[in-house]
Amino acid sequence: MPRPLKLAAAQMGPIHQTSSRSSTIQRMLTLLQRASSLGAQVVLFPEMALTTFFPRHLITDPTLLSSYYEHASDLPNAPNTKLLFDEAKKLNIDISLGYAEMTPSGKGYNTTLYFSAHTGTILAKYRKIHLPGTVEPFANPEAVNQLEKRYFHVGDLGFEAFRAPGLIPGVMKKGDVKVEEGESTEGKGDPIFGMMICNDRRWAESWRCYGLQGVEVVLCGYNTAGFAPDLWGTRRVMTPEEAEEDAVFHHKLVMQSNSYMNSCFSISAAKCGLEDGKYDLIAGSCITSPEGRVLAEAKTRGDEIVFAEVDLEDCRQGKEKTFDFARHRRTEAYGLITGRTGVEEVGLL
Amino acid sequence: MPRPLKLAAAQMGPIHQTSSRSSTIQRMLTLLQRASSLGAQVVLFPEMALTTFFPRHLITDPTLLSSYYEHASDLPNAPNTKLLFDEAKKLNIDISLGYAEMTPSGKGYNTTLYFSAHTGTILAKYRKIHLPGTVEPFANPEAVNQLEKRYFHVGDLGFEAFRAPGLIPGVMKKGDVKVEEGESTEGKGDPIFGMMICNDRRWAESWRCYGLQGVEVVLCGYNTAGFAPDLWGTRRVMTPEEAEEDAVFHHKLVMQSNSYMNSCFSISAAKCGLEDGKYDLIAGSCITSPEGRVLAEAKTRGDEIVFAEVDLEDCRQGKEKTFDFARHRRTEAYGLITGRTGVEEVGLL
Repeated sequence: MPRPLKLAAAQMGPIHQTSSRSSTIQRMLTLLQRASSLGAQVVLFPEMALTTFFPRHLITDPTLLSSYYEHASDLPNAPNTKLLFDEAKKLNIDISLGYAEMTPSGKGYNTTLYFSAHTGTILAKYRKIHLPGTVEPFANPEAVNQLEKRYFHVGDLGFEAFRAPGLIPGVMKKGDVKVEEGESTEGKGDPIFGMMICNDRRWAESWRCYGLQGVEVVLCGYNTAGFAPDLWGTRRVMTPEEAEEDAVFHHKLVMQSNSYMNSCFSISAAKCGLEDGKYDLIAGSCITSPEGRVLAEAKTRGDEIVFAEVDLEDCRQGKEKTFDFARHRRTEAYGLITGRTGVEEVGLL
Repeated sequence: MPRPLKLAAAQMGPIHQTSSRSSTIQRMLTLLQRASSLGAQVVLFPEMALTTFFPRHLITDPTLLSSYYEHASDLPNAPNTKLLFDEAKKLNIDISLGYAEMTPSGKGYNTTLYFSAHTGTILAKYRKIHLPGTVEPFANPEAVNQLEKRYFHVGDLGFEAFRAPGLIPGVMKKGDVKVEEGESTEGKGDPIFGMMICNDRRWAESWRCYGLQGVEVVLCGYNTAGFAPDLWGTRRVMTPEEAEEDAVFHHKLVMQSNSYMNSCFSISAAKCGLEDGKYDLIAGSCITSPEGRVLAEAKTRGDEIVFAEVDLEDCRQGKEKTFDFARHRRTEAYGLITGRTGVEEVGLL
């Protein structure tokens, strides 16, 4: 029995330091309306969809730094963001978006949430676990920093998959289904989602934690640098064009392969283009299939809806055959994965 | 300091049930000589390089079944295989090859070994952990079976990376290196290898276990069906050409992405073509880089050497930056990976 679902990535062009919140929200409303006109039921916005990617700067002014975080615990009712959630509800579209979260106790997280138009509530929240970059800025003042480890705590909510109700007519919520003996349960479940953010997608562990919960759609917003002066002393020197192509290649490679290895769809949504007129972020938002194919991808480097209608039952072949975890995984051989964090010797001695 | 290494995959066309061992060994010698003429230092032969892929048949005759396994514990000195190792030693080439192993106590494994020309010994052995297929044959007599779970035990040697000496002039063996304070250790280590077999390559866990040991070159032989009548009741119906393209796509996707996510090179070697004139195996042997790029790949569907000269120092950028495990991995979030084998509910209820 088919379980059709209409998915969209809402790719966003740059948000500058000088961009007003109201202009950003207005762009998001426009994207939502476009997605709605295509029939989208779930729309993913990028990581840090409400602000510029501020971790590229060393910010010492506490007031300025504070202004990049959302302090409200209830974004659907916060003055700064309410319009967006109202519109999602009105259009009957579930939305997921990333933002810098500041908790009441003063802890910063790189967070994404999932808002259900059906329930009118935030169904799930994810706080980024694989924070890239460094705590301390580079000594070289020309360097573009990546200070997520400075501004955010490591996510403390784990990788928790969840079901979103109301998206597929006739299906029932977890636990609600009564099945007669011999009756098929096919097509009776609400979709299972998992959220990750940017760098998480390069880590097979993120995907597998969701895969082991039967995930059917992975949502991943990102802000990924295309080109920045190389201050790591590494050996490869690339032109800006090569660096951009390389970063998009890696992005698609990990979205495709991890979707395949976990038999799930994925949506990825970029914030892209030149923020503040000079900091390059790649585009490449896409929707991938459980076979690892790109079903739809961005054609521009600005605000754009990437759309695909899928059938969640297409996850079934992988989950029941090649990637039937219960029959094939051998956890007794995987001890190092949880038992050791890093490499004790990196091939040098 | 560069650590150059010349790698080769020795792709092999079909080995039929009627092929004699001596003709198979002769083909392998020819491949070794071709590899030698290119300067190869390490040559990888396919999974089950000495026989047809017999797990596609339900074999009830114990004598016939037994004939597909190597019973000798010391292949370099066994009459059936000695010529190959002698030639490798003569040409000063390390070789890795797959075969069906029968232990003295009567346990079958799908095994691969690494023979060092420098030491003249088997340096390491790996027994396949992710056995695909089923224990029982399909009811449909038209089905092409995949009975690895019937004929082999799950590998009991884990994923053990190892160093191979004598390949890079001037480097020293593990533990031998004395480094003065402040002196760089760069370029001083023997290469670190990890072996996997066929289906293992689709499991990110195999790669990560090696990645966590600093692996620099993953070796993976395979026998992968291109097209077989679909008896799983799955929904996708493909032509033989589509099925072949799909299988090669998935093969390259996982080799490229997992090489990238673990900052290592990989060599993959196929047994390919139509075994016994009708069972289709894909080709697509290739060598991939730590950036996930294909450096060289097979152009034919038969016996062929795929060659690339690499610099192991190219693993360094990934291992020290994006994929610096010690700085970025969060093992406290990965509990499911070792704590749960399968999915408790596969998106249906």
